[in-house]
Amino acid sequence: MTQFYSKRDLKFQLFELIKADELNQIEYFQDHNRETFEMILEAADQIAQKSLRPLLTEMDRNEPQLEDGKIKIHPGMKSIIQQFGRDGWINATFSYEEGGQQLPWTIHIAAGFILQAANYSASVFPFLTTGAANLIRSFGSQELIEKFTPNLYSGLWQGTMALTEPDAGSSLSDLSTTAFPTDEAGVYKIKGQKIYISCGDHDACENIIHLMLARIDGAPARTKGISLFVVPQKRIDTQESNDVLTQGIYHKMGYKGAPIAHLMIGSEDQCEGYLVGEANLGLKYMFQMMNEARLGVGMNGVAIATAAYYSSLAYAKERPQGRRINNKDLNQPQVPIIEHADVKRMLLFQKSVTEGSLGLLLYCSKLADEVQREPNSEKKKAKEALLDLLTPIAKSYPSEMGVHSTSAAVQILGGAGYTTDFPVEQYYREARIHPIHEGTTGIHGLDLLGRKVLMSEGLAWKLLHQEILKSLNQSSLDPNLKSRFEKYHRIVLETAEKVLARSKKGLEYYLADATLFLEMCGILCVAWKWLDQSNIAQSQLNGGSPEKAFYKGKIMASEYFMEYELTKIESLAARLQSESYPTLEMKNDWF
Amino acid sequence: MTQFYSKRDLKFQLFELIKADELNQIEYFQDHNRETFEMILEAADQIAQKSLRPLLTEMDRNEPQLEDGKIKIHPGMKSIIQQFGRDGWINATFSYEEGGQQLPWTIHIAAGFILQAANYSASVFPFLTTGAANLIRSFGSQELIEKFTPNLYSGLWQGTMALTEPDAGSSLSDLSTTAFPTDEAGVYKIKGQKIYISCGDHDACENIIHLMLARIDGAPARTKGISLFVVPQKRIDTQESNDVLTQGIYHKMGYKGAPIAHLMIGSEDQCEGYLVGEANLGLKYMFQMMNEARLGVGMNGVAIATAAYYSSLAYAKERPQGRRINNKDLNQPQVPIIEHADVKRMLLFQKSVTEGSLGLLLYCSKLADEVQREPNSEKKKAKEALLDLLTPIAKSYPSEMGVHSTSAAVQILGGAGYTTDFPVEQYYREARIHPIHEGTTGIHGLDLLGRKVLMSEGLAWKLLHQEILKSLNQSSLDPNLKSRFEKYHRIVLETAEKVLARSKKGLEYYLADATLFLEMCGILCVAWKWLDQSNIAQSQLNGGSPEKAFYKGKIMASEYFMEYELTKIESLAARLQSESYPTLEMKNDWF
Repeated sequence: MTQFYSKRDLKFQLFELIKADELNQIEYFQDHNRETFEMILEAADQIAQKSLRPLLTEMDRNEPQLEDGKIKIHPGMKSIIQQFGRDGWINATFSYEEGGQQLPWTIHIAAGFILQAANYSASVFPFLTTGAANLIRSFGSQELIEKFTPNLYSGLWQGTMALTEPDAGSSLSDLSTTAFPTDEAGVYKIKGQKIYISCGDHDACENIIHLMLARIDGAPARTKGISLFVVPQKRIDTQESNDVLTQGIYHKMGYKGAPIAHLMIGSEDQCEGYLVGEANLGLKYMFQMMNEARLGVGMNGVAIATAAYYSSLAYAKERPQGRRINNKDLNQPQVPIIEHADVKRMLLFQKSVTEGSLGLLLYCSKLADEVQREPNSEKKKAKEALLDLLTPIAKSYPSEMGVHSTSAAVQILGGAGYTTDFPVEQYYREARIHPIHEGTTGIHGLDLLGRKVLMSEGLAWKLLHQEILKSLNQSSLDPNLKSRFEKYHRIVLETAEKVLARSKKGLEYYLADATLFLEMCGILCVAWKWLDQSNIAQSQLNGGSPEKAFYKGKIMASEYFMEYELTKIESLAARLQSESYPTLEMKNDWF
Repeated sequence: MTQFYSKRDLKFQLFELIKADELNQIEYFQDHNRETFEMILEAADQIAQKSLRPLLTEMDRNEPQLEDGKIKIHPGMKSIIQQFGRDGWINATFSYEEGGQQLPWTIHIAAGFILQAANYSASVFPFLTTGAANLIRSFGSQELIEKFTPNLYSGLWQGTMALTEPDAGSSLSDLSTTAFPTDEAGVYKIKGQKIYISCGDHDACENIIHLMLARIDGAPARTKGISLFVVPQKRIDTQESNDVLTQGIYHKMGYKGAPIAHLMIGSEDQCEGYLVGEANLGLKYMFQMMNEARLGVGMNGVAIATAAYYSSLAYAKERPQGRRINNKDLNQPQVPIIEHADVKRMLLFQKSVTEGSLGLLLYCSKLADEVQREPNSEKKKAKEALLDLLTPIAKSYPSEMGVHSTSAAVQILGGAGYTTDFPVEQYYREARIHPIHEGTTGIHGLDLLGRKVLMSEGLAWKLLHQEILKSLNQSSLDPNLKSRFEKYHRIVLETAEKVLARSKKGLEYYLADATLFLEMCGILCVAWKWLDQSNIAQSQLNGGSPEKAFYKGKIMASEYFMEYELTKIESLAARLQSESYPTLEMKNDWF
């Protein structure tokens, strides 16, 4: 079986870069230590290797189908979902009282990375159930918790997030699914439709539990009138239909193994939904889970790109073609293509983008664990601000670069990579969803520049640069690397100042290139995490570590990133500092 | 039916930008004029709309299958191929004596653009037949011409280019298919295998005629011992098998309608091949067609990206979602997403990349027509040098950007774009082949920097910059646009000087970033063609043209390109001028 991630690198990221073992200083995690974390990762590796990976291609070739109103998925998924439940994956981060393991979210997402790299489609099922259960346990009544969570934790039932509607995708304000009060408190009749609901229906679980956004009849407009409901596919007491109809299935370019449903809710006025928490706070609840969900999407992007990287690396080491540029002697055998500088460039690109993104995402994940458990309100506020700022970046950069990185993997394989004989074309198709999932890149650009950079008078933006300066002062850093980074860091700060000044000119001008601003920040942040990785690697090498190849690889990938990726800031800054606005001046009928 | 290209823009490119009607000053084309050219384009439009476009999705969903040793393709292709033959498309550029129309290649490729935008898979069949027939008529004996070309021209037989072998893809030197002389002069027994042969077998034609590279037994090593053969699938006289077996079919990510075969040749020593021209000149012959073939691949990339652009444009104009950034009043209806700056950015990106690339490709096509017919040897040499230099650029930039451009189309549609309900995901999959076809981007980087820039003491490189300066001196050019272009032009020249100086350091250093050098030249050349387009548009507007929207769109797309794309040269130059070489220093076991 071709390698699809690196255990060594994941341990480096967790225990050398972000020092995840320090999390056990937090009371909630006190029973954990590096050893328990490694056991969990090893368990994830086992499921990934034995259960998920063998179905990767099959699940792509035999996509789910809607038959007689029911979506049929790959028959292998049933036992996988049950295993996730049995082994405690779904509620691993929850408290002991809830039957969980009080596992840091950081370790949970790291384990998720392994599963996603093995088979992204299969990894989607338990991830959604965890998200749905988390909403119920966090904001639901004791009655809802008791009624719904046990069977979600066990994998008997599937959880979903039912947000999107035909007229409300990026614009959730326009949500029109309606909840009508009944005589029974907390029970509503729901009516509407939802589209693009991941795992919204399938035959591997006995029930599907939708965490659904809807507007209580007469509620305020905009996002202020949106409530959260639990809407099961079957009534819990009778096991009969709850009037949630699977109207359609979406066939899609990639991650075909996970079904996406179009649901009609309450078309016969028989759909019961149960209010979670208070009325009109639905979006607020949802958004309290949003940082984690968005980091999760970034992680999906990295995971798929990592699998593609190792696939193309294995090919490049084996495939003989051509000779080195200085030796065209045909009597010599052909060399493996990894010997060609351009192939090495594409491999270094993938390595630097994936390992750099992974570092950033795990850094954010640790922040998320800390924020949740931080007793000191001042510190909590600061950490939360930094996490809020970094989330759109850590969601978008890995997602966007996952597309380019998997594309490089295809390119290394050449014609072979374009065929279905190798998995890289599948990775390429699958990676394309992440710039769309959980808010498109454009939306995150607006979030970053329009909200996060400005909030609390720029508190988070200042904190970020303080943290970057800390990294720059690390002892083992190569002065040359340091000065190059400093140059681009300065360009980003200058550019941000110019862009911020533009807000006086009007919001449209200020936000016109928010996506490019986001891209620039993504490059800077990943370069920052490469500073840290490079520092650790250099001090290991200085200390005579026997793992020379591993740490040399880190130094070189860092060097690559500074040379080929960080430099992209120059062009982005040139554009962002310009006062010409073609995207605002262009008229619709000029296209 | 959604628009898949713009007639107006194609006419602009042909008759305003490159002035294709001037080609009738060349004797061979003297019977042609703008009117005949437009008739041909109209005929292409008709076939595209009526025959090709309706099969676009179907051909993707029902891909060819190998059954009992024969590849079965979509049944609709048979009549399409016959129509191509009947209407004279296959030999349109050939002489009247050959039954052709003496059509300039420029118009042929422009018509091809329409067909490719309508249905890329379907367009592949006649294109390959034309290429094969062209080799026979240009280099084959009268006997071969008479024996093979009529049925190729009529579409009764399919032509192919059979180059690639398992061990000889990018490295054709390592070709091992062998031709053994027989008693009959010009007739050889061929033995070997070929992979990735486009249209290498299918059931819509009565015979498949392979133009195959092989090494005559005992011939010199390297490319110097490669000969070209005509190898039919069935013997012409008996219609019996010529021992060319279809061993396999490749299933691929995109353009699934065109079959790609794995062929076993002469496994029973019964395969007859007929030498084309002289022995050992096979690669030379093939390469005389290469500029056109490579421009053709660039055109495929633009055509698919153009179809994706119009698909996403139509969607953006219709799909309501959200409100303008300065108006969040929910009582107002949602606006079409084209009103959002970031969506306009993605549309302008597509427009500027596709129309800019089309301009460059048609400019090169006209050069190709002129080179072929130029009587003055000095002028011919200059034009040929310029064409040789531009070919890797005009192949690679549109191919690489086709990937990014179709990706932007998917992004505009969001979740919908990822589903098979819209054609953009298909375009995205299809566009990915072009950076691989006809030499990967890496190979073209080496060709440009290692050969074309250096040839005839830099003659072509100097000519290119002379031509660029001519464009800069155009009368209607906005001085601001001009000065921005000049800045980046200067950066390219300075960077090229630094890179050229590096050749003293060693070939590996000189060529390490050839792909980035190619990318930089691609951006410059497309910006150059935008200068020309902008100049024409401005003088039309100055002259009071009633087509204000069209020409304003040109001005704005040009502005976009200079602001968002030309600026990328800064980062590329920063990297190319650096003296750090991670791709050369990285060791295989450090990955």
